[in-house]
Amino acid sequence: MALSYIPPIRDMQFVLHEMYGAVDALAQLPPYAELDRDTFNAVLEEAGKFAAEVVAPTNAVGDLQGCTLDVASHSVKTPDGFKEAYRQYIEAGWPALAADPAYGGQGLPFVLNQSCYEMLNSANQAWTMYPGLSHGAYEALHAHGSDALKQRYLPKLTSGEWTGTMCLTEPHCGTDLGLLRTKAEPQADGSYRITGNKIFISAGEHDLAENIVHLVLARLPDAPAGSKGISLFVVSKFRLNDDGSLGERNPVFCTGLEHKMGIHGNATAQLAFDGAIGHLVGEPHRGLAAMFVMMNGARLGVGNQSLGLTEIAFQNALAYAKERLQMRSLSGPKAPEQPADPIIVHPDVRHQLLAAKAWAEGGRMLGSYCGLLLDQARSHPDEAARVAAAAQLALLTPVVKAFLTDNGLAATIGCQQVFGGHGYIHETGMEQLVRDARINLIYEGTNAVQALDLLGRKVMGDQGKALTQFGKTIAGWAADYAREPKMAEFLLPLQDLGERLTELTQAIAAKAQRNPEEIGVAAVDYLRVVGHLSFGWLWARAAQVAQAAIAAGSTDPFYSAKLETARFYFARLLPEVETAFRRLQANSASLMKTSHALA
Amino acid sequence: MALSYIPPIRDMQFVLHEMYGAVDALAQLPPYAELDRDTFNAVLEEAGKFAAEVVAPTNAVGDLQGCTLDVASHSVKTPDGFKEAYRQYIEAGWPALAADPAYGGQGLPFVLNQSCYEMLNSANQAWTMYPGLSHGAYEALHAHGSDALKQRYLPKLTSGEWTGTMCLTEPHCGTDLGLLRTKAEPQADGSYRITGNKIFISAGEHDLAENIVHLVLARLPDAPAGSKGISLFVVSKFRLNDDGSLGERNPVFCTGLEHKMGIHGNATAQLAFDGAIGHLVGEPHRGLAAMFVMMNGARLGVGNQSLGLTEIAFQNALAYAKERLQMRSLSGPKAPEQPADPIIVHPDVRHQLLAAKAWAEGGRMLGSYCGLLLDQARSHPDEAARVAAAAQLALLTPVVKAFLTDNGLAATIGCQQVFGGHGYIHETGMEQLVRDARINLIYEGTNAVQALDLLGRKVMGDQGKALTQFGKTIAGWAADYAREPKMAEFLLPLQDLGERLTELTQAIAAKAQRNPEEIGVAAVDYLRVVGHLSFGWLWARAAQVAQAAIAAGSTDPFYSAKLETARFYFARLLPEVETAFRRLQANSASLMKTSHALA
Repeated sequence: MALSYIPPIRDMQFVLHEMYGAVDALAQLPPYAELDRDTFNAVLEEAGKFAAEVVAPTNAVGDLQGCTLDVASHSVKTPDGFKEAYRQYIEAGWPALAADPAYGGQGLPFVLNQSCYEMLNSANQAWTMYPGLSHGAYEALHAHGSDALKQRYLPKLTSGEWTGTMCLTEPHCGTDLGLLRTKAEPQADGSYRITGNKIFISAGEHDLAENIVHLVLARLPDAPAGSKGISLFVVSKFRLNDDGSLGERNPVFCTGLEHKMGIHGNATAQLAFDGAIGHLVGEPHRGLAAMFVMMNGARLGVGNQSLGLTEIAFQNALAYAKERLQMRSLSGPKAPEQPADPIIVHPDVRHQLLAAKAWAEGGRMLGSYCGLLLDQARSHPDEAARVAAAAQLALLTPVVKAFLTDNGLAATIGCQQVFGGHGYIHETGMEQLVRDARINLIYEGTNAVQALDLLGRKVMGDQGKALTQFGKTIAGWAADYAREPKMAEFLLPLQDLGERLTELTQAIAAKAQRNPEEIGVAAVDYLRVVGHLSFGWLWARAAQVAQAAIAAGSTDPFYSAKLETARFYFARLLPEVETAFRRLQANSASLMKTSHALA
Repeated sequence: MALSYIPPIRDMQFVLHEMYGAVDALAQLPPYAELDRDTFNAVLEEAGKFAAEVVAPTNAVGDLQGCTLDVASHSVKTPDGFKEAYRQYIEAGWPALAADPAYGGQGLPFVLNQSCYEMLNSANQAWTMYPGLSHGAYEALHAHGSDALKQRYLPKLTSGEWTGTMCLTEPHCGTDLGLLRTKAEPQADGSYRITGNKIFISAGEHDLAENIVHLVLARLPDAPAGSKGISLFVVSKFRLNDDGSLGERNPVFCTGLEHKMGIHGNATAQLAFDGAIGHLVGEPHRGLAAMFVMMNGARLGVGNQSLGLTEIAFQNALAYAKERLQMRSLSGPKAPEQPADPIIVHPDVRHQLLAAKAWAEGGRMLGSYCGLLLDQARSHPDEAARVAAAAQLALLTPVVKAFLTDNGLAATIGCQQVFGGHGYIHETGMEQLVRDARINLIYEGTNAVQALDLLGRKVMGDQGKALTQFGKTIAGWAADYAREPKMAEFLLPLQDLGERLTELTQAIAAKAQRNPEEIGVAAVDYLRVVGHLSFGWLWARAAQVAQAAIAAGSTDPFYSAKLETARFYFARLLPEVETAFRRLQANSASLMKTSHALA
């Protein structure tokens, strides 16, 4: 019994076209001036079809089989079907979708690529990480590589013939990359020999592609200690001949695969670099900055992974709740002709379903909003507009990563609960979603690291400018609808939340001046509040669009559903901020002055 | 790298002796008049040793191997080490601990047995379910079986030579047992032939014991439809000869084992009853009532499972947080001699650790409080006292089941998060704790079912009498300390919560008169509030005992730790009620009038 999946094309179109007018907005960016809505929709349809028909069938088997390492040959076999699905993926040209036409890309916008990825993530997160990581490597090389490196690597990454990785973590350092020890020794020919051990390298070794392009953080001999002495290198599994063809095997070997809670289909590799030949990407000692090009995209991507899992969890739990008969409604039988009512009549089942739906659709709204910001930050003809978009995106990136993944874990757990005991059994597929979703709160910077990034760097670090600007954007939108009585149920709580957040931010800033630790004490709750401000705004926007459509005479039940979900969000999910605010008022000593309790 | 575990004997003694004066309280019950503190403590020490030394080493291997079914012989092999640990368990006489001396039991109190089980659950929940289920079968037979049945089955269940099960669920019915179809046909000799298929039978087949005693719900031929036509039968794997020795194999066969998210070491069996011979337990058609004897004990037991997992998750996360070096404290280096600070300096790590500690110790306080109530309900010489204890226990049983298991899932996830990427890897053992903890929110009645039981049956069903009595108990205790300035920080929020809960209960009652569905809409949040009232009270009591010890001159850091944890609980966990109250004020239409959203 595999999970069923219907690509949420209608909702994507609602968000992109009806809420954001994405095609018109993108048309202001020179690369997308010619983009039309039909092309946009056709890509979504085709990607959805590919995800549902080609990728989804590999999900359960991938979880059961996992990847296997042949220690003697250092080769990794992916689960049955992965290779064939990947072959079809590159044959159809999907890796090139949002890549630079200069290297064979199709030059479509990031936000469209992201929507396609959402569907791939729903279908199989572990499989999708192989092309996903490639995209990260592509981005880093594209932004920081020399022309020579770009010419050598980008076309093959764009075609998908080669895949990529990000090699950051070592056994003793994850978050704290300043501690890393992998060495890079300059060679006479301008290359470097890389030596060291990396762990947790997603897609680090596999049989999907003929070559793997590792982006590796390492230290040059003259590197200063800490995070300012880290450089970025490209090291490919097979060295390249002068004509770009594959040469001899580079000594970067998979020495082990991790046994993980989930994403079994992705090879999480231990990689030993034994003097592998690599090339410097960007400036010496500036590797962390270069890597952050990948990391920021990757963080949006992790939020998108949980969005995909939330959507498919919702779809399957909804279907089950309509079929499974158990007990009667407290207000009397709803299906008297049956031996019991479908469990969808029960309030807690409805709560779990609506929560998953509201988290998924809200995540889609915020993710796509950020996707559009990224396209604007990259391609807007006006520099001020690019800078403004980049600032908003920087503010919201940790929110997308942490808020969507927190929500995704809660939603997959809630949807699993709808299945009762059957949700605990592998065959229904729900427990895999929980196990897969779990990693998203951890990798690419734990959610607590995201919270510190948001409050410490993105808010306090620029004296609240980006946050204030975000608030102005929300207030500006709200002002347009302030006189619509039907919008009051959404605008009043939104305004209230905005005011409380402003006060809160000032209060934390004042406390942090006395004790910088207050930032850390507040950060996680603070991120949840900012997440709700973002969702509250976007759910209000969605409700406005739905109301307008209904007022214009539409009888499409999609709009009624959207309004109901918006109301559910405001009534039953947004209240989470009450706990956060209460906790944020608490004395930090209750957390930090606890040396006996944590002795 | 296995999980480490130190039995929390000191904290158990604090709760049982210092908070509850358990030995004195038990001495008022005739069966325990002679019980002394040394015996009590010696049992705890020995049980802890057994759990840590014999059972804990089987945990990781049990998860990896799981159970295997030989289809041809219908036999199930448990993981390596399970059988030997069980042999030692019965050799040491542990199954007899709280059993009736009339059948070979040691006659010790339930609350002591429960503390021993907490440690076994920490060591290996899946293993502990084998003896745990036996205890449930023992209880049902002891309460409802005829003398003849008791003589035949109880001595062997008491010795542990045989184990037991509860056979309720069928493929189409879990919560809704009224739908069950398994048939019982009366035979001329007074026995019954049982025919039907049961699923999700924990410990349903295995190689630990020579016989398995199934307590089975089935329908007699003349049974009325629904839940009032269900009878309880005892069906043993091997039929018994007249002398009580094992006779021929009864046709109850394991036809499959479930592939589960966790508790892999426990055999979750599909059982086919093919005309197996059984005997009626209790009255015809009164099987559900008889089974509820098992269910209520089992629900306390499930809370206790999550308590055990929370404790071991906390211990291991604390140890890791003190060792793992990563980043610096925001207020400056705390371990300047090291390349980075131990991660325990970081606020979110502290939050996860303190939350787990507060949930574990709070769960121990509430679980033991209920354990003492059970002993009083069974053995108090005064009938009114028995009735009063039973009423309090009935109120709190769903709270123990749901609140402790919700908390346990949150805590194991939080402690896993402390490990970063390493927590996602099987070898650290943390991800297994999450997978094992997950079932506890589902089985023995999902947590939503517990919430309905609490609000619908235990509160509204008796016009709030039991809740009012519980409130009086709390208020009576609080009155004794109302003039102690040091207690104000605990008593004021507790009083406030009590008053808000009273108002809330009245408001729900008023709404429910108009629409019974309001009970279901409110139930889950309501249970969380009652859980916090219980924990708030018990943490206040713990703080009072700790303050008194400190005032009396104790310098034992245990008391300082207890106070710090109490303050953490009030400042940072109790605020969860703010979200619950806010949601409880919301219109139920936001949940129930959502037919388009859930179409």
